[in-house]
Amino acid sequence: MTPAQVPDFGQVQEAAERIAGHVQRTPVLTSRSLDAIAGCHLHFKCENLQRTGAFKFRGASNAVLSLSDEQARRGVVTQSSGNHGAAVALACRERGIAATVVMPDNSARIKQAAVAAFGARIVACPPGQAERDRAMARVLADTGAHLVHPFNDARVIAGQGTATLELLAQVPDLDIVITPVSGGGLLSGACLAGHGLRPQLRIYGAEPAGAADAHESLRLGRLISGRAADTLCDGLRADLGSLGFAILGQHLDEILVVEDADTIAAMRLLWQRLKLVVEASAAIVLAAILGRPELFAGRRVGVIVSGGNVDLDALPW
Amino acid sequence: MTPAQVPDFGQVQEAAERIAGHVQRTPVLTSRSLDAIAGCHLHFKCENLQRTGAFKFRGASNAVLSLSDEQARRGVVTQSSGNHGAAVALACRERGIAATVVMPDNSARIKQAAVAAFGARIVACPPGQAERDRAMARVLADTGAHLVHPFNDARVIAGQGTATLELLAQVPDLDIVITPVSGGGLLSGACLAGHGLRPQLRIYGAEPAGAADAHESLRLGRLISGRAADTLCDGLRADLGSLGFAILGQHLDEILVVEDADTIAAMRLLWQRLKLVVEASAAIVLAAILGRPELFAGRRVGVIVSGGNVDLDALPW
Repeated sequence: MTPAQVPDFGQVQEAAERIAGHVQRTPVLTSRSLDAIAGCHLHFKCENLQRTGAFKFRGASNAVLSLSDEQARRGVVTQSSGNHGAAVALACRERGIAATVVMPDNSARIKQAAVAAFGARIVACPPGQAERDRAMARVLADTGAHLVHPFNDARVIAGQGTATLELLAQVPDLDIVITPVSGGGLLSGACLAGHGLRPQLRIYGAEPAGAADAHESLRLGRLISGRAADTLCDGLRADLGSLGFAILGQHLDEILVVEDADTIAAMRLLWQRLKLVVEASAAIVLAAILGRPELFAGRRVGVIVSGGNVDLDALPW
Repeated sequence: MTPAQVPDFGQVQEAAERIAGHVQRTPVLTSRSLDAIAGCHLHFKCENLQRTGAFKFRGASNAVLSLSDEQARRGVVTQSSGNHGAAVALACRERGIAATVVMPDNSARIKQAAVAAFGARIVACPPGQAERDRAMARVLADTGAHLVHPFNDARVIAGQGTATLELLAQVPDLDIVITPVSGGGLLSGACLAGHGLRPQLRIYGAEPAGAADAHESLRLGRLISGRAADTLCDGLRADLGSLGFAILGQHLDEILVVEDADTIAAMRLLWQRLKLVVEASAAIVLAAILGRPELFAGRRVGVIVSGGNVDLDALPW
């Protein structure tokens, strides 16, 4: 598999075999009270219960386990606002190789702590995609490490797709799958796995209004980037990648744009009703459903709960 | 089944059949990072994901579904600091009968709201067991309703036992089961189900230092009551009941006494690592395990996570 090529459904299936035994098979939860509020049948795929607290461990594991021994020897570098960094750090620790993570200096404290706890080296940089890219290029030049990009990498996208693959094995007759979208890895993987198993599936993304570049890119038919992100969804500030742009353009029904205030309300609702610790970047999906009820009414909806890494001392309410 | 008689294992099995289809089969979660911290293999039976957010719905459903049509017609009354009240309210609503819940006026706001949301009438009373009993006697006299006591009732104990019955079906080879103890319904049910299925099982309770009447009663060999409870575990303030006293005396290994500060630390740990919203009265069990590691080292431990009803605006950290 070439990291820079658009992956296909077969690569999602291969990823599932490769990472089995490393990743957790996460449960699917339901809630009668949330179904009553949403007017549809919600099936929450709990990737907040995944190792490292986020789906990111799937893609990172697939990429790190795909490396040849020679590639692995020089270590891995990546950039991440947090969850992908922790995922790469743990995947590298399990393979016994070095990891370096370039993190914007406004990353959530708890996510920086997790990366450090898994033994990776952190290189801080100013926020913004261009600054991240520059800092990572420097590390690549200095170390010769292998790049595992957080989303614009076929191995990562294929790995993230295993969340939807598993969900459809657990609940085969879904009408809709919806995930958050930032760089597009999770949502692209959902497209490949979802339509690979179930061509009639409708697939949606949810994106913060303050970082709606993916929505805008798909609307314009060309990849835009470089706008400043303004959202408290700290996992959703990256720009859509070129691989994601290609996959979403072919598969996606729509990206639903959500205001942060609605995301916070949905986050509270998930904590209260589902009893799950869910981060804002994950709760956005429920907010998207509640904001466009006509799209979901009466349907069987698979919701990828992408992560649960929250600073308990800085809750947004 | 007579409510005032000590139930047996067969009644737990009957309860499981009676309430199937009404209660949720809750998942069992594990966490490598918590196992590393605790030095044992923890299996969390997530009754915080039970309907109404607590195991109490099991016992309440069994009791309400056990009523004859004539008994049911006059409605049900109970006393509760919250979770049992919500459970009786929902069980009665599903059977289409009236429910009255006597609640101490220091009950958590969120638990009062839940009882009201399920359509029950709330009668407020001062805190303290004697005051609760008096208020409930008045309601019984006024309405002729049927009493479903929160724990000193064979039908309730048998229903609570189904949590452990299910856990042992999900993870058959446990060495230990541990639950919180207040009035003793959950722990007594764990004893009946646990030793019914697995005689060699060790069974522990966890009780707040500020409300350790069950610990003291078992130590003295007689049921003590009437001491003022001083703990932030708002679900663990009741005194052990006589049925629980009889069952625990026969089955229990030990009640572990826990300081509230340790419970709060364990609660935070469960939120951070297990990504579950767990109330203090449930988190006490992890605190008990961490406080007495020699009892659990290397063992396969079943932990009943009793509830997740938390006021998100008043977290204890």
